Amino acid sequence: MARRICISVIGASVAAEGELSIAQELGREIARRGAVLICGGLTGVMEAAAKGAREEGGLTIGILPGEDSSSANPYIDVPIVTGLGFVRNVIVAYSGDAVIAVGGKLGTLTEIAFAFMKDKPVIGIGTWAPEEGRLEGHKLILAKDAKEAVKKALEIINTRRA
Amino acid sequence: MARRICISVIGASVAAEGELSIAQELGREIARRGAVLICGGLTGVMEAAAKGAREEGGLTIGILPGEDSSSANPYIDVPIVTGLGFVRNVIVAYSGDAVIAVGGKLGTLTEIAFAFMKDKPVIGIGTWAPEEGRLEGHKLILAKDAKEAVKKALEIINTRRA
Amino acid sequence: MARRICISVIGASVAAEGELSIAQELGREIARRGAVLICGGLTGVMEAAAKGAREEGGLTIGILPGEDSSSANPYIDVPIVTGLGFVRNVIVAYSGDAVIAVGGKLGTLTEIAFAFMKDKPVIGIGTWAPEEGRLEGHKLILAKDAKEAVKKALEIINTRRA
Amino acid sequence: MARRICISVIGASVAAEGELSIAQELGREIARRGAVLICGGLTGVMEAAAKGAREEGGLTIGILPGEDSSSANPYIDVPIVTGLGFVRNVIVAYSGDAVIAVGGKLGTLTEIAFAFMKDKPVIGIGTWAPEEGRLEGHKLILAKDAKEAVKKALEIINTRRA
Repeated sequence: MARRICISVIGASVAAEGELSIAQELGREIARRGAVLICGGLTGVMEAAAKGAREEGGLTIGILPGEDSSSANPYIDVPIVTGLGFVRNVIVAYSGDAVIAVGGKLGTLTEIAFAFMKDKPVIGIGTWAPEEGRLEGHKLILAKDAKEAVKKALEIINTRRA
Repeated sequence: MARRICISVIGASVAAEGELSIAQELGREIARRGAVLICGGLTGVMEAAAKGAREEGGLTIGILPGEDSSSANPYIDVPIVTGLGFVRNVIVAYSGDAVIAVGGKLGTLTEIAFAFMKDKPVIGIGTWAPEEGRLEGHKLILAKDAKEAVKKALEIINTRRA
Repeated sequence: MARRICISVIGASVAAEGELSIAQELGREIARRGAVLICGGLTGVMEAAAKGAREEGGLTIGILPGEDSSSANPYIDVPIVTGLGFVRNVIVAYSGDAVIAVGGKLGTLTEIAFAFMKDKPVIGIGTWAPEEGRLEGHKLILAKDAKEAVKKALEIINTRRA
Repeated sequence: MARRICISVIGASVAAEGELSIAQELGREIARRGAVLICGGLTGVMEAAAKGAREEGGLTIGILPGEDSSSANPYIDVPIVTGLGFVRNVIVAYSGDAVIAVGGKLGTLTEIAFAFMKDKPVIGIGTWAPEEGRLEGHKLILAKDAKEAVKKALEIINTRRA
């Protein structure tokens, strides 16, 4: 099996400084642990995470909303061009073995919901914590920083694969 | 202009009795007011709303997740066959001039979020009220019953069209 | 069962005069026979077909590529807003009980292929006749004019429903 | 710029022996030349191409139609999970800097058409050669074998990037 572990990092395309440095550290940590970084391929949290992963020699995949690859940030190795607009959020959520959310607004909320619909582990740093009664048993896992988030993601992925 | 006013009703495919009767009354009221009912085309809230609309002679459109029309509930006049799975939620959200949510779980949450992303009015009866700080200025409009929900939806639609 | 017969008309957004008058007559004939017209909602063949259907009091559905309804031609009763770009061609192909192609270029070819993939009857007037050896048993049905095309479409639909 | 050159290989999920060995050699050659292999992730031509690329240490991306990664063939490094059914063909076509078709049936035809719609170079080995009058100036480039196909693809990609 060639199959690599993939972790999706989600968050806003315009983000606060603090969120960007968390995202960059997430990218670094994902690469250090040998996983592939998947993100939406654009700016903000997506770019910071890809930059971090590249710094550690990791592989970065950007699932782009547009119809060509020109919008990909410069740290994306492989742009996946969907032409689907915001609908590409679903593919970001489905393609990670785990999803890590940093802050985020409406788009991030859709990605968390689609990840839960497929029973993916979702780890959040300062993000949405939707009203639990409606989550059909799904629960956002909280992490205090990037290192802890990646550690928790990999623990769950490895347990499920075992 | 042939263009008709369209209202999307969203909610769970397995719903409590109380939600079903609200949905059916929503369908009736939408039809009485001359609007087109758009929904996800399946069971639960979707079927009750379509049934109500048909009782009043209204037109019902079902945006189906599957690759053929066989899953449409019996009250759908025009099944739109997408083959897109849960992604069809986005089309339900985008195609209503307003969106009315009845109860609902994760799928409903994604539809509310996509509706907000396109600045649609979203009226809720006993549904998600996501943490406002993250909604980028969007606000769920609450309604106590079906009649009030449709009234509020049409007021906003007509104001925007004027 | 509320379910109505739906016929998709496909063709180019910029079309020759002769194709436009065939499309308009297709729309008229579809409406006269009580079926719903489905199309891509934009200009050219799509607009002419919708215009014809409206002239005869028919119902017209436009499956739009964009993220709002502003691009719908003025003869569309119900715009379905997909935000999916050219991918919406698949929904046009899947949603007709039969598909009728008038002339057409690359987009029309994709719609014919997706219709065949779902075993839909496809009737063509002056359109693609793809190399038969590769069509996995599917065959474009040729028609000489609009009346014949709709007649052939309805015969197959009614036989399949019987 | 991290951005890598990506080549999509398309063809049937059930393919003749001769097509499979061409696909495998395509995968090998793509990897030898340092490009990333993109494919639909399933069996047949997709699997043979991914197997070839892996033999030469290349990176393989599979754009899957289903809602989880279980259908990926064993030579896929990174499964992109779309949940979009056949619609994922569009993403395969859009994501390659060039597209190489081996044999193929209806699905392959849709991919060729979508690639042309985005003005991608499409190289064919024993595949569809659609009626040229309707192709809006696009032309399938013929190749006699895998080596020539990859060579032609890279020449066009490099010329465009220069």
